[in-house]
Amino acid sequence: MAEMKAHTEYLTVTTDDRYEMVHLTPQLEEIVRRSEVDDGLCFVSPMHITAAIYVNDNEEGLIEDIGVWLEKLAPRWPGYKHHQTGEDNGDAHLKSLLLHHETTLPVTRGRLDLGRWQRIFYAEFDGQRAKKIIVKVLGIAKG
Amino acid sequence: MAEMKAHTEYLTVTTDDRYEMVHLTPQLEEIVRRSEVDDGLCFVSPMHITAAIYVNDNEEGLIEDIGVWLEKLAPRWPGYKHHQTGEDNGDAHLKSLLLHHETTLPVTRGRLDLGRWQRIFYAEFDGQRAKKIIVKVLGIAKG
Amino acid sequence: MAEMKAHTEYLTVTTDDRYEMVHLTPQLEEIVRRSEVDDGLCFVSPMHITAAIYVNDNEEGLIEDIGVWLEKLAPRWPGYKHHQTGEDNGDAHLKSLLLHHETTLPVTRGRLDLGRWQRIFYAEFDGQRAKKIIVKVLGIAKG
Repeated sequence: MAEMKAHTEYLTVTTDDRYEMVHLTPQLEEIVRRSEVDDGLCFVSPMHITAAIYVNDNEEGLIEDIGVWLEKLAPRWPGYKHHQTGEDNGDAHLKSLLLHHETTLPVTRGRLDLGRWQRIFYAEFDGQRAKKIIVKVLGIAKG
Repeated sequence: MAEMKAHTEYLTVTTDDRYEMVHLTPQLEEIVRRSEVDDGLCFVSPMHITAAIYVNDNEEGLIEDIGVWLEKLAPRWPGYKHHQTGEDNGDAHLKSLLLHHETTLPVTRGRLDLGRWQRIFYAEFDGQRAKKIIVKVLGIAKG
Repeated sequence: MAEMKAHTEYLTVTTDDRYEMVHLTPQLEEIVRRSEVDDGLCFVSPMHITAAIYVNDNEEGLIEDIGVWLEKLAPRWPGYKHHQTGEDNGDAHLKSLLLHHETTLPVTRGRLDLGRWQRIFYAEFDGQRAKKIIVKVLGIAKG
């Protein structure tokens, strides 16, 4: 009978810049390997509301394009109401919503089941301090 | 051996206003407790296409900012083709897509495994009538 | 005791047009039936980064509205940095991010547990060639 497994790890990321895209695929592959889950899902989410996880190409020009596009649709701007609390990161909350915060990935035969160009990124919009990411792998344990 | 559990509940929300953000975290915490799932995932989705679930800060100014931002990117407008069916809620469909409709949350040691400021909201864009939300908790049962 | 099951299928879609919305609900219902999962989650994702899965109404006018809206927020444009690699599909990557790439759906009593108007679509933004979609159903097996 199939046995179920859940495996959780927490990553900590501190970016040099306020805005930065961090490539996570190799670390996530390692976590899936350690989970010993053969078939299931891998959930990845920041534990913060000024960052997001997204799936796209690991191509430098495109990563720049994504940054410019996010800034156009959710610009840094002093006038957000949220700033009346003393914060200055209203745009980071909106950018997190625009990329939808968290991502789920498929796991098949013990590995992330990704297409040729699919890579996973942590998008930081209020960095330069330690931020946590939760990774939870849930599924059928290796035989 | 780890036993698997699935637990499903349906919430009904009727907002006073057409557009409204409803804070769901306490109700979701209760459902996770009742599920008796120790380790797994909690899936939350409206059963409608004019609403969404999102994760962000429970701060009044920010909630206003999110509403203004959604209206800017997916405005109420008489000219949508969808309105030729007699509907007037084209913008609500686009706002639902912009916030990506549904959300998945991690459950660890029998509780939502959230960061300090992460809160879950139901975003209503065509309210003033009963709308349903499905919550499904899937994972390893408490020992 | 509840037995866990995971069931994976891959769909191939080749659209006639570069931009096209493909209605997937009937095929997904079939996959959930074949999975013999009674209670759980159904994960659906393109294996490409120029497409997305979304949940919304199967209404022709609205589908047109969504296309116009995506083009407004993430326009086709020669100036993307990504195009320096020889590509011309920078907009397709941004449109995929805007619709958030992948979707998770609830499965209850062996069927997709959807609201009356919820339908699942594959949104192609760089078509006219074979593209793959992964569908993974995870949950408690039929008794």
